[in-house]
Amino acid sequence: MDESLTRRRRKEIASLTQKKYRERLGQTLVEGVRSVGSALDAGAPLVDILVGASVVDDDEVRRLVSRAGVPVYVVADAELAAISAVETSQGMLAVAEIRTSTADALRSATHVLVLDGLQDPGNAGTIIRTAAWFGVRTLITAPGTVDLYNPKVVRATMGALWDIAHVQVDDLPGTLREMRSGGHVIYAAEMGGSDVRSWRPAENSVLVLGSEGHGISPEVGALVHERVAIPGASTREGTESLNVAIAAAILLYEWVSTSP
Amino acid sequence: MDESLTRRRRKEIASLTQKKYRERLGQTLVEGVRSVGSALDAGAPLVDILVGASVVDDDEVRRLVSRAGVPVYVVADAELAAISAVETSQGMLAVAEIRTSTADALRSATHVLVLDGLQDPGNAGTIIRTAAWFGVRTLITAPGTVDLYNPKVVRATMGALWDIAHVQVDDLPGTLREMRSGGHVIYAAEMGGSDVRSWRPAENSVLVLGSEGHGISPEVGALVHERVAIPGASTREGTESLNVAIAAAILLYEWVSTSP
Repeated sequence: MDESLTRRRRKEIASLTQKKYRERLGQTLVEGVRSVGSALDAGAPLVDILVGASVVDDDEVRRLVSRAGVPVYVVADAELAAISAVETSQGMLAVAEIRTSTADALRSATHVLVLDGLQDPGNAGTIIRTAAWFGVRTLITAPGTVDLYNPKVVRATMGALWDIAHVQVDDLPGTLREMRSGGHVIYAAEMGGSDVRSWRPAENSVLVLGSEGHGISPEVGALVHERVAIPGASTREGTESLNVAIAAAILLYEWVSTSP
Repeated sequence: MDESLTRRRRKEIASLTQKKYRERLGQTLVEGVRSVGSALDAGAPLVDILVGASVVDDDEVRRLVSRAGVPVYVVADAELAAISAVETSQGMLAVAEIRTSTADALRSATHVLVLDGLQDPGNAGTIIRTAAWFGVRTLITAPGTVDLYNPKVVRATMGALWDIAHVQVDDLPGTLREMRSGGHVIYAAEMGGSDVRSWRPAENSVLVLGSEGHGISPEVGALVHERVAIPGASTREGTESLNVAIAAAILLYEWVSTSP
């Protein structure tokens, strides 16, 4: 283990809890022993690892450190806790490079998932984790969506963030128009849409998930070929609801199950 | 609004963040404006409501208070925050009676969901919310499962807790044996089970969900007729995973979609 973390690097790492510095440095934080393990499993582009002094001799930590292949710094527990964005110190964190993809990645993808305005880091991370499970590995985020490199999102993906091609677009309607021209069929999750049980997605398809509160924007809605929804059995119509990550999971499941 | 909350009642309410006192008083906390609204929509057995002084004139709060039909007490914001189990004060909380059902409720139920050891309050609450959405309204919890009246669970159910019949059992294997004798078929979610896509649940069925880390116990496993699983498309077999509430949602969806 390398023990000489410079004051400058320490400050840089601490700054990664803020989006501005993540963008400037092109790096993000992977917090917790389990998340660092998942990132290593996924071949994430790690830069360096910090380990809290009290867990240095922990078996799992030693295993991870031995295969990390990047500098590992031991720091005081309190210091690690001060850097970490999560509430309880997790004993270990890694810095990883942010690697987004260009729009070229979209043309050849059969299943493209779009997050358009989703706000909650836990929901976003869970959706990415679920998408990767089902083999949906191309993701677009539109402006107004939670930053996927927010450490809370990174953590909730459980390593899946490193398995997907992520395209950040400034003009989602423009991107969707191009994809339509290229032969993709555009679907959106929306209450009142057709029953997901009779959904027959096209071979090359895009699924748009809107924000928790407001769904998809009118500009995007105008480009959608078909809306799909998950009917409930509610006896109190309009009061019960599905969490957005749960609804997304059921759509992802049907999407990959029924695609030709 | 009734403004005279006694010191004794104040102390009782604050004690409801602890399981021991919830059981002793047979009451729990419903925290936040939205949760109180959901509880009222669901006809939850509310006892009284506390409103923070700063939100008393809020439109939504006034609407809820006007239809509450139980005593409403205005308290200092700081006091409300001190009582609340959630980190940020939500301006409003209600006390609700805990009403569990007896095992009689199980005999006539076509779909019975069992939580056997699930630990995470957010997962438990989300599963109950999803189950209610799909019309699965009979729930068994076994010892070692998170307390469903933990305010974090109550909150995560988004009101659905008040729509289900909840049976707490001490001896889950005994209960399952009786249900088998009564004609219920027992299914369990388990990795390595048969593909959920070909699952054809019996008319009267029980679905057991185990704990996040350890699945179902051997005693329960011995009583299961069929195990079901959600196959993934993972390219890194064994490293990717599904969140337990996500897996539960897909099983619930298939359960009610394919039941005869």
